[in-house]
Amino acid sequence: METPPETGEAAELLSSNNAIGLFDSVDAFLFDCDGVIWRGDTLIDGVSKTLDFLRSKGKKLVFITNNSTKSRKQYWKKFRSLGIEVSEDEIFSSSFAAAMYLKVNNFPQDKKVYVIGGEGILEELKLVGYTCLGGPEDGKKTVDLQSDCLFEHDKTVGAVVVGLDPYINYYKLQYGTLCIRENPQCLFIATNCDAVGHMTNLQEWPGAGSMVAAIAGSTEKKPVVVGKPSTFMMDFLLHKFNIRCPRMCMVGDRLDTDILFGKNAGCKTLLVLSGVTSLSSLQDPSNRVQPDYYSNKLSDLLQLLAE
Amino acid sequence: METPPETGEAAELLSSNNAIGLFDSVDAFLFDCDGVIWRGDTLIDGVSKTLDFLRSKGKKLVFITNNSTKSRKQYWKKFRSLGIEVSEDEIFSSSFAAAMYLKVNNFPQDKKVYVIGGEGILEELKLVGYTCLGGPEDGKKTVDLQSDCLFEHDKTVGAVVVGLDPYINYYKLQYGTLCIRENPQCLFIATNCDAVGHMTNLQEWPGAGSMVAAIAGSTEKKPVVVGKPSTFMMDFLLHKFNIRCPRMCMVGDRLDTDILFGKNAGCKTLLVLSGVTSLSSLQDPSNRVQPDYYSNKLSDLLQLLAE
Repeated sequence: METPPETGEAAELLSSNNAIGLFDSVDAFLFDCDGVIWRGDTLIDGVSKTLDFLRSKGKKLVFITNNSTKSRKQYWKKFRSLGIEVSEDEIFSSSFAAAMYLKVNNFPQDKKVYVIGGEGILEELKLVGYTCLGGPEDGKKTVDLQSDCLFEHDKTVGAVVVGLDPYINYYKLQYGTLCIRENPQCLFIATNCDAVGHMTNLQEWPGAGSMVAAIAGSTEKKPVVVGKPSTFMMDFLLHKFNIRCPRMCMVGDRLDTDILFGKNAGCKTLLVLSGVTSLSSLQDPSNRVQPDYYSNKLSDLLQLLAE
Repeated sequence: METPPETGEAAELLSSNNAIGLFDSVDAFLFDCDGVIWRGDTLIDGVSKTLDFLRSKGKKLVFITNNSTKSRKQYWKKFRSLGIEVSEDEIFSSSFAAAMYLKVNNFPQDKKVYVIGGEGILEELKLVGYTCLGGPEDGKKTVDLQSDCLFEHDKTVGAVVVGLDPYINYYKLQYGTLCIRENPQCLFIATNCDAVGHMTNLQEWPGAGSMVAAIAGSTEKKPVVVGKPSTFMMDFLLHKFNIRCPRMCMVGDRLDTDILFGKNAGCKTLLVLSGVTSLSSLQDPSNRVQPDYYSNKLSDLLQLLAE
């Protein structure tokens, strides 16, 4: 039997009593985006005022998203379109994390990267100087299953990066599978393993966890995960902001990625119920991840501090 | 720590000394097809003569395949086209197993089945009287990811059956995912979980294990597996042939499906090296599944018995 992970104490509802303590004890707030800052293309009520207030009090703000479909620059544009001023440096997307993982591991520039995922991953990889194959371009490709047909792949591919891909097909699955199965040195990198996500306002859709599992299933290999709950991105953050983890608070809407990431890194954690997690699932006996605090939405913090 | 499964004794090379003992001790031979009987569309050397010999000696022959793309009838046609006479009743495909699983579990006829997989699954389900959605027909469907778009699904779907699907796409992933996530009663059935298979003569391609993992990844559920190494099909076999498992020999080319199936059921086991398993992978210290015997190909049995 594996020892179950520590459950910790039950989360406290954020209140006027504990909000000031949380506020005073941290120098940086780390935010997940979807379900915390926005839902789909709509800003969540009170977010803008809350971020302005935190900045005015000298708190650092960082945005950490597992959504790999956009690059940092594309996220920066999205923030602007919603009326929020951020700098690209404050944004840590799992597409950026994938590029950084290759960079810090000295992945050679003469090797190529095969991408199952969106334009955001390609953009980040190109910014670091890597040559990519796959991505949206392979979304319309089909396979020839005639018995004597050979599926060719580029033997210089040294890494396969898999993220959310709404244009997943058998061509991409075979390409990624051959790269990994026929070359034991080939890296298998997952931007994240979220089971589902709000691809549209009204519904959840299969997330990167679905495509990553498909490749893990065909290759019988486990990926290196660079997005939350992996703390890979934390090193970049620490380097950039020079703040210790206990002086950070991770704010997110998912227990198994955001809150687990915060706890893994030794940050304080605040769950907001404005995204995928309901109060009943937080309080369900089967839930093993307890944040320090929870509240309905991010702006509750502002309101409680003003009381 | 989980206890590792029993490894058993190392496999014996089939020889003129032990072949007669194996032959005398069994009344039925169970064969995997791809890699044992044929490779792609080519019969493996000596198979026809060997099957004729076994039949002439009164042995029962059964063909058990994890490949769900064909129905029993379609397999029967394939055998005939290769010049081998079998009856449909001797063929147990994982497409048939999926239909039988629903039948023996009294799956209601007024519920529908959503299929991610090939025509063979649809055929078998229809033979038992079920109404199917999905399958090849959904292979060209696309999704609308506009933020206010709602993806509709039939709420009367009570089971999702997943097999090998070369036309996998995001539409099918979302359909299957919604059926399972939005209805806790919905069954999730995998025809099999083979990582790869010889979709063409020259190469391996992602197998049902890839599509099954994709749905397991998005639904956070584990499937019921009806193909090998699950022994679900064995009950039908026992009922039909009235032979005890120790008087059967499973012949296959895969350790993790065929040989494990035979061992799980308590049959004797013979690995042939004419398919996906090499001698070095059989003898690799990491291999935990040892057949009783191994030989290069099925017809070795005939040759050794004649010596």
